[in-house]
Amino acid sequence: MKRFFITVEYDGTNLVGWQKQQSGESVQGYLEKAAMALTGRDVLVQGSGRTDAGVHAMGQVAHLDVPEKFDEKAILQGLNAKLETKQVKVLEARHVSDEMHARFSATKRSYIYRILNRKVGSALSREFMWHVPYPLDIEMMQQGANHLIGVHDFTSFRASACQAKSPIRSIESIEIIKQDDVIELHASAISFLHNQIRNITGTLVQVGRGKWHPDMVLRALEAKDRAKAGPAAPPHGLYLSKIEF
Amino acid sequence: MKRFFITVEYDGTNLVGWQKQQSGESVQGYLEKAAMALTGRDVLVQGSGRTDAGVHAMGQVAHLDVPEKFDEKAILQGLNAKLETKQVKVLEARHVSDEMHARFSATKRSYIYRILNRKVGSALSREFMWHVPYPLDIEMMQQGANHLIGVHDFTSFRASACQAKSPIRSIESIEIIKQDDVIELHASAISFLHNQIRNITGTLVQVGRGKWHPDMVLRALEAKDRAKAGPAAPPHGLYLSKIEF
Repeated sequence: MKRFFITVEYDGTNLVGWQKQQSGESVQGYLEKAAMALTGRDVLVQGSGRTDAGVHAMGQVAHLDVPEKFDEKAILQGLNAKLETKQVKVLEARHVSDEMHARFSATKRSYIYRILNRKVGSALSREFMWHVPYPLDIEMMQQGANHLIGVHDFTSFRASACQAKSPIRSIESIEIIKQDDVIELHASAISFLHNQIRNITGTLVQVGRGKWHPDMVLRALEAKDRAKAGPAAPPHGLYLSKIEF
Repeated sequence: MKRFFITVEYDGTNLVGWQKQQSGESVQGYLEKAAMALTGRDVLVQGSGRTDAGVHAMGQVAHLDVPEKFDEKAILQGLNAKLETKQVKVLEARHVSDEMHARFSATKRSYIYRILNRKVGSALSREFMWHVPYPLDIEMMQQGANHLIGVHDFTSFRASACQAKSPIRSIESIEIIKQDDVIELHASAISFLHNQIRNITGTLVQVGRGKWHPDMVLRALEAKDRAKAGPAAPPHGLYLSKIEF
């Protein structure tokens, strides 16, 4: 058997998320069905991490093991040919050693959160950005974000359902940029907690619209209490953009 | 009665286009239903021009006449509240004089055509860009486009179904720009013929991929024969971006 890394783009709209579930169609489920159709066997497609229902990806990475006869081109073209949805696309297939693991070998995960910041909502980006109608001050948001960079206990920013053993994470960077009506939050870390970026974004929007002083982000962090941080931003503005190994 | 101009954004995916038709849902149909729900009367929503099935808009403009009691805010919020789809959004409502006409008073129409120029297609932009897998040389495309600027007989670039009396049009500008994997064609004119931008784009892609010399665009134009220009680009990459008065 040979192990391949695949880079996957997906439109998470109306999907139940990355992980297979009884309740609906998942990215992993679509990929495993395509891999079975291609290879004639049961294939586990192991992602670098889960994404929630509605969350998108430009660069999710997963690994799968297939018989020796397949090469990179056959995996790339074969999976795309067998995929039973247009919402999932394999962008690249790369042969890797058997020791490489999409989840455990990943050294850096990057996400982008997109906000449409204008008075009226959008028809074109309604599933692809969070519409925030209040003016947001991105310098204030950046000041708030800076309190979160580094190694911290992120209890205040993790979902109650989060299964990670430790709430300690090391955030490498959070950058807030704006072009025209679109504000993007770019965040990188070795790994994130469940809902961490959505909780951070929702909190920073409180800062950006002037409801919170940037220092309140530090106080929320120090409280180690989910109730002390802001509400979660909705899933449809979030993109898993890149996984590094 | 008072006349309003409304600026409309829409996602044309799976719609039959701007104009009302028996065969399916249209932007005009949705807006007229919303206007009727808001005002209690039959309201004609007159667009600056039609767009085909699958074509999008960031800035279509239409006019409608409503009773005196409505102001700009009531029209903007009322229409958006009554719209029975998320694919259409009113961005602005402006009270104008009764002589203003969305179609006949327009002095400039601008469109954007978006091409995703990379090997593998996209899940996220599958309904919003034309995927062209061959490398495209945008300098060659611009050279080809330059032959089309100015006043010409565009018989070679109009749809057979085009209802315009004259094939003469005056193109003010065509600019081809590239950022990362995305190539955009920006075109402006007083008005365009049916399918003109899609036929121009399809022709310029022949140039960009090296099948045509840029001068062949001039020869196609001079031939005044639709068969001498390139194939039409698909509708889902096209956006009506701006109407000026």
